[in-house]
Amino acid sequence: MTEHKVTFLPHNKEVTVADGENLIRAAMEAGVHINASCGGEGACGKCRVLTESGELSGGVTNRLRDDDVEKGYRLACQATVTGDVTVRVPVESEVDAGVLNKLSTPRQTARIKTADFDELKEQGLFIPPLEKVYLELPPPDAQDHLPDVTRLVSHLTMSHDEHRLGVSLNVIRKIPDALRQEDFKVTATLARPVREDGKTHIVNIEPDDTSGCNLAIAVDIGTTTVYGQLIDLVSGEVLAEHGEFNGQISYGEDVITRIVYAEKPGGLDTLHERIISTINKIIGKITKRAGIETGCISSITLAGNTTMTQLFLKVNPRYIRRTPYVPAATLYPPVGAAELGLNLEEYVSALVYPAVSSYVGGDIVAGVMGCGMYRDEALTLFMDIGTNAEIVIGNKDWMACAACSAGPAFEGGGIEFGMRAAKGAIEDVSIDPVTFEPMLLTIGNKRPKGICGSGLIIMVGVMFEIGLIDNLGKFNRDLGTPRIRKSNGVWEYVLAWADDTQIDRDIALTEIDIENLIRAKGAIYSGCVTLLEEVGIGIQDLDRIILAGGFGSYVDLEKAMTIGLLPEIDTRQVTFIGNGSLSGARMSALTNRIRRDVVKVTRMMTSFELSETSSYMNNYIAALFLPHTDMNLFPALKDRLALRKAAGSPAKPSSSG
Amino acid sequence: MTEHKVTFLPHNKEVTVADGENLIRAAMEAGVHINASCGGEGACGKCRVLTESGELSGGVTNRLRDDDVEKGYRLACQATVTGDVTVRVPVESEVDAGVLNKLSTPRQTARIKTADFDELKEQGLFIPPLEKVYLELPPPDAQDHLPDVTRLVSHLTMSHDEHRLGVSLNVIRKIPDALRQEDFKVTATLARPVREDGKTHIVNIEPDDTSGCNLAIAVDIGTTTVYGQLIDLVSGEVLAEHGEFNGQISYGEDVITRIVYAEKPGGLDTLHERIISTINKIIGKITKRAGIETGCISSITLAGNTTMTQLFLKVNPRYIRRTPYVPAATLYPPVGAAELGLNLEEYVSALVYPAVSSYVGGDIVAGVMGCGMYRDEALTLFMDIGTNAEIVIGNKDWMACAACSAGPAFEGGGIEFGMRAAKGAIEDVSIDPVTFEPMLLTIGNKRPKGICGSGLIIMVGVMFEIGLIDNLGKFNRDLGTPRIRKSNGVWEYVLAWADDTQIDRDIALTEIDIENLIRAKGAIYSGCVTLLEEVGIGIQDLDRIILAGGFGSYVDLEKAMTIGLLPEIDTRQVTFIGNGSLSGARMSALTNRIRRDVVKVTRMMTSFELSETSSYMNNYIAALFLPHTDMNLFPALKDRLALRKAAGSPAKPSSSG
Repeated sequence: MTEHKVTFLPHNKEVTVADGENLIRAAMEAGVHINASCGGEGACGKCRVLTESGELSGGVTNRLRDDDVEKGYRLACQATVTGDVTVRVPVESEVDAGVLNKLSTPRQTARIKTADFDELKEQGLFIPPLEKVYLELPPPDAQDHLPDVTRLVSHLTMSHDEHRLGVSLNVIRKIPDALRQEDFKVTATLARPVREDGKTHIVNIEPDDTSGCNLAIAVDIGTTTVYGQLIDLVSGEVLAEHGEFNGQISYGEDVITRIVYAEKPGGLDTLHERIISTINKIIGKITKRAGIETGCISSITLAGNTTMTQLFLKVNPRYIRRTPYVPAATLYPPVGAAELGLNLEEYVSALVYPAVSSYVGGDIVAGVMGCGMYRDEALTLFMDIGTNAEIVIGNKDWMACAACSAGPAFEGGGIEFGMRAAKGAIEDVSIDPVTFEPMLLTIGNKRPKGICGSGLIIMVGVMFEIGLIDNLGKFNRDLGTPRIRKSNGVWEYVLAWADDTQIDRDIALTEIDIENLIRAKGAIYSGCVTLLEEVGIGIQDLDRIILAGGFGSYVDLEKAMTIGLLPEIDTRQVTFIGNGSLSGARMSALTNRIRRDVVKVTRMMTSFELSETSSYMNNYIAALFLPHTDMNLFPALKDRLALRKAAGSPAKPSSSG
Repeated sequence: MTEHKVTFLPHNKEVTVADGENLIRAAMEAGVHINASCGGEGACGKCRVLTESGELSGGVTNRLRDDDVEKGYRLACQATVTGDVTVRVPVESEVDAGVLNKLSTPRQTARIKTADFDELKEQGLFIPPLEKVYLELPPPDAQDHLPDVTRLVSHLTMSHDEHRLGVSLNVIRKIPDALRQEDFKVTATLARPVREDGKTHIVNIEPDDTSGCNLAIAVDIGTTTVYGQLIDLVSGEVLAEHGEFNGQISYGEDVITRIVYAEKPGGLDTLHERIISTINKIIGKITKRAGIETGCISSITLAGNTTMTQLFLKVNPRYIRRTPYVPAATLYPPVGAAELGLNLEEYVSALVYPAVSSYVGGDIVAGVMGCGMYRDEALTLFMDIGTNAEIVIGNKDWMACAACSAGPAFEGGGIEFGMRAAKGAIEDVSIDPVTFEPMLLTIGNKRPKGICGSGLIIMVGVMFEIGLIDNLGKFNRDLGTPRIRKSNGVWEYVLAWADDTQIDRDIALTEIDIENLIRAKGAIYSGCVTLLEEVGIGIQDLDRIILAGGFGSYVDLEKAMTIGLLPEIDTRQVTFIGNGSLSGARMSALTNRIRRDVVKVTRMMTSFELSETSSYMNNYIAALFLPHTDMNLFPALKDRLALRKAAGSPAKPSSSG
């Protein structure tokens, strides 16, 4: 991948970006503010920059005068980096560039870390759960009239050192004709036992050599979205991937409403059928995309929260929502995929990730398996943040886990202009600390439609750091910017004026929105702290944080710590594994070693019920501030705020608009 | 059971019979000949006897003159023994009573020996395969919120010392509601592993205490008839029993025609459905008869020949009838009974007896298990005689087996007046060695309709001993009795004149019938001899013979040896286990010890293909005589024939008719 160096003046900040990167995104990454209201669509024409050396591609639009273009001005949002370049950003404030540099730090997003097939092999963790073995059997004759199954099994024993073999009736039914179709040349699919002392099962038999075609499917059954991957069991490669909304969504947005629906007559059947047909749709898409027949698929591994798992398996989730909140089971046996209604061959087993409790489900266990924290010395805080946040703390010796309800703020719920992470969602924000003019980036560089979770966290962090809001989340009403205003009795900050949006309305962030976010982050933070207290360690003991789930890799870690969502630790120690549930499902599909460990891991994971832990409420109340009542927990932020105060910010703007 | 002594004069023979026994049957048992043509219905009036002391009940009919009744005459077939009694039989011949006694030996039927539940327990062989355990679980609360399945499993582990428990999805689905229906009081059905290192499976869960109701079904899938037993797993008792014709019978009488039919499009499905519906009919009958719900049935164990087994399991038997005659499998895993279409709960497993080869099937293995020969020092010859005869020789250290086709003679097939063992079938015969008048006993004491297998063997044996036929099975045409005649070019002996029958035709045994019988018995005998030769031992080494199958307990062993069907050994060493297949199925239903042994046993059983053993044909030809070309193999018979010759029999009759 070709990379280029971009230098921003007057800040004198350098950032290295990939060839073709959008310049305004490069600026955001560098922590350089450029006014921009239209999300990067080129509509507002505010993000003018001057090319001082090198060249940019594009960035010339009718929003620039010809003579300015001649001089080297470009619209940052329309320009892409195709070589080393130095650009000057018109700075409207008088703040010293040196201080600016210290205060506007570059984006520090979590490093993405996903499990790797070769790594599994290197670490000796690769024990294929399903293998296809090509066999050339001696045909029977007058001297050798072994029964067909015995012939197959003996050959596997003698010539392939296979022992303790089991064969199901369905396979027995196929064997006689399969053997004779290609003169006793066949391919047997062997399913290895998860326990070392278990049996290997011959789950399929095909005439001729089909050993090259051996695939698995991994599925994350999310309450909202279901993702599936098609995996080549020979190479470990993901051949295709697809996500679909969970077909149950019309029966309720969250797990509780789904459980309520499942209790109605026929409800469980309906929800079961919906999730099955969603998965079938995904199977259809990914097999089509990879150009393969479903006959090549030997296994399917799935992970989901406890309720999704029970609905998938048609186990009534009724008691999950009733005190004392017990699930039917946490560990499920492998089940025939076709029996469940999945469009897979009858011999395909569906392996479902075990859960820890009603609220720490198989998706979280899968995340723990996917990130490998259970094999590591490092003391890890694992967080999967969505509507609910699940927290796991521990390492290879012990693990504690808990779930807390964050509410939908991180997914854009309960926020006036909140929206899911889709095109036009404001995903990143910078605000000039003097003029309070924003720089907005939207998904897809479209004019803004609303605010998504990552944008919300960043904007509240930015606002707090520059003094736009106080530690209660209330706006500083004396800043003299028209963007802070009272509307319908509620104070708000206008991020984008109607003209620059897709919705012909001003897009603003209100104090109510901020309150909702504070409650959400307070619930998560106090969850972490309470769990740490329960196991008798402190934040300073944590070696790293692993993030999973919808929280995304785009969130600025520093800002997440600024608002007190994440405990403050060295951002280099934070990694993001993406969809942890899918990642764990894929790992289990690839190797029995993970399948074997997973049961041990669920037994290791001590579950805490936060609502029954007396300190939780106190911790929660202490966390309903930005970042927290105890600033000493956030020493880096404390330093930055002190520096900013010394630099005299917030200052009256020199100009406005 | 009250017993009485019956003394027959002038023979001065005593026999002890049960209270209520028919006098003519008592005579047959004692080996005392009384002329009787009507099978015991009282129609012919020939079986007059004189009561000399004691009393008989009944026996007074209009076939006797009043003054004769006054004198003490009775019709033997209409009289029953209700106290000690001495009767005199009018003897038409001049033969000395002492010689008579030596020649007409009492019936020596095989002792019936069936496996017994208490015996299993005493021998330490009782390991219940399915147990119901009543549990009172602690309900969950805020401190104890174990998942439902974990609650159940932990309780079984802690309070009932159960380990390595597995639970299927279907049971998991039931658990949450079952637990809460009777306040966490439930009964769990535990299926024990066959292998000691296997898992115990919780196969069902029911609210409340249902541990008293735990039943199993054992089935013998015969080609012609299917028998089922309902067994109480707590007491070991057989609660009900029923037999039905195999519903496949309209698609072919024997296994070969069934296989041919199974190869037609849809044929396998049809035959599978027929046997399933036959078994369902039996399940319906026996549960109704015992007054129980099918919900109490925890398991079903079945045994059948290899073809019947494959048709039951819907495994195409195509290759069984094609050289080199290989079955699909000999060992089958347990299969869901409901999946096969049986009207049993979904959790019930169908356990099918393993086979040894295409022609030594699960029915024979079940017989070997049922008779226990595989646990014994005694060198045993096990024979299951029907259309095919299967032979097993061995003991606890080794076993050899083979099958030979006997043809249908033993089931009344290929015999002009042959019939199955049903009412009116001649099942026992005595022939006066001087007058050649017969004494016929029929099943149900009805006027004769035909000849069944056991009757056929006895009559040929009797005829040979008294010189009515020679060692080629040809009639002595010089005896002057009208019963020996030529009809349609074939010589025959009239057993019953038309007037005394139900069919208004003379019932006769022809030389062709005898030839068929000789071929059938020759095939079996040479099978035994060949198998003995193959393993290097002789008849004299055999400690005992165990008979199974349709051959019956009514066959006179001495006569079976006379015709050379059975090797000649001490008749006290011959036992009959009835339906060996059903008996073995019942044993496996009762105890895992048998299930565990059965796999070992099938591996022990070395199968010989007689058609590929060069000595078989020579042995067969040598056996096409009565009893055999080599009289030295039958020393007791040789002595009897010598004695009879010395006594001057056959003699001209003193009177005829």
